[in-house]
Amino acid sequence: MAGQDYTGALPLRLLAEQFAKLPGIGMKTAQRLAYFVMSYSDEEAKAFADAILHAHKTVHSCKICQNLTDREICPICSDAGRDRSTICVVEGPKDVSAFERTREYKGMYHVLHGLISPIDGITPDKLRITELLKRLQGGEVKEVIMATNPTPEGEATAMYLSRLLKPLGVKVTRLAFGLPVGAILEYADEVTLYKALENRNEI
Amino acid sequence: MAGQDYTGALPLRLLAEQFAKLPGIGMKTAQRLAYFVMSYSDEEAKAFADAILHAHKTVHSCKICQNLTDREICPICSDAGRDRSTICVVEGPKDVSAFERTREYKGMYHVLHGLISPIDGITPDKLRITELLKRLQGGEVKEVIMATNPTPEGEATAMYLSRLLKPLGVKVTRLAFGLPVGAILEYADEVTLYKALENRNEI
Repeated sequence: MAGQDYTGALPLRLLAEQFAKLPGIGMKTAQRLAYFVMSYSDEEAKAFADAILHAHKTVHSCKICQNLTDREICPICSDAGRDRSTICVVEGPKDVSAFERTREYKGMYHVLHGLISPIDGITPDKLRITELLKRLQGGEVKEVIMATNPTPEGEATAMYLSRLLKPLGVKVTRLAFGLPVGAILEYADEVTLYKALENRNEI
Repeated sequence: MAGQDYTGALPLRLLAEQFAKLPGIGMKTAQRLAYFVMSYSDEEAKAFADAILHAHKTVHSCKICQNLTDREICPICSDAGRDRSTICVVEGPKDVSAFERTREYKGMYHVLHGLISPIDGITPDKLRITELLKRLQGGEVKEVIMATNPTPEGEATAMYLSRLLKPLGVKVTRLAFGLPVGAILEYADEVTLYKALENRNEI
């Protein structure tokens, strides 16, 4: 009965295993979370389980931008006040949240749901690229901003899409990389510093 | 629609809030976990929700040792091979797991479900102390080991129980505190070093 992972009860171990499936949560943390849920009232436990089922059932990709939403068309795509001539292409839904927090960007988004990474088996056909091309057909879109991370996969995806989209007559831009605001030169890594130098602006 | 915590969809935000209720999980991690659950298949999402409900419904305190279990009497208390003359008193179920991992302790346990901490409103009557006293009535128990953490609350609880139990004619012991195995003297904190000196043994 007393094993390496003794947790007192099988249902508790099963719950801990569910928590351990989540990214960044190891078995020890997962056990702690499972014990914590045991201190919930019946209503709280039900609310947690229902939140999982409800979110999983009702949330899907927006038909236009592919961001996660519980409507057919997400609030951003259905907002008449936004600039439809610009599409910001991002890796995932959390990048949309990040840009929205700036409260400055008023254009549209397109969520790829991943980055090209052949080593992980993620080829361009696994991403929502066809859906992006379809949005460019009307001629309404003037600029596509590549807002993928400055990682090898992010750069490769931006490059790939840029080559794919330019022949369609659309302006393709890339996020500026340089010193983060408030940074101290001395502590900046060399790649960032090089990017900051390369992309310098006249003042 | 686009707020400070824009998550694209209300059900997603509700799920993230559920994750954020768990100890050690902030809102940013909670959002990441909620997005991750969106990548689950229907079966996986259902398994997660069911694990919560099932564990919460079936797991309760063992009638004897108060550890969490899905049976009336937990596997340790119903194990005929264990030494019923010794009870190891611990703060919570995860401490039982820790002792079981040593594979050396063969006695019984008693889980207090907390430590005395008047500042947090945890008075002795909030802990499973009555249940412990009941176990000592038969005269079968010869030794009670206080295995609470070496924190102020753990020490206070051990002291309190020791004064309560000694008059009943039972031997009350405390875990040894000293240098952890593999530690280097130079880096040990002064309290640990003092404890190691104080509890020195003849060799």
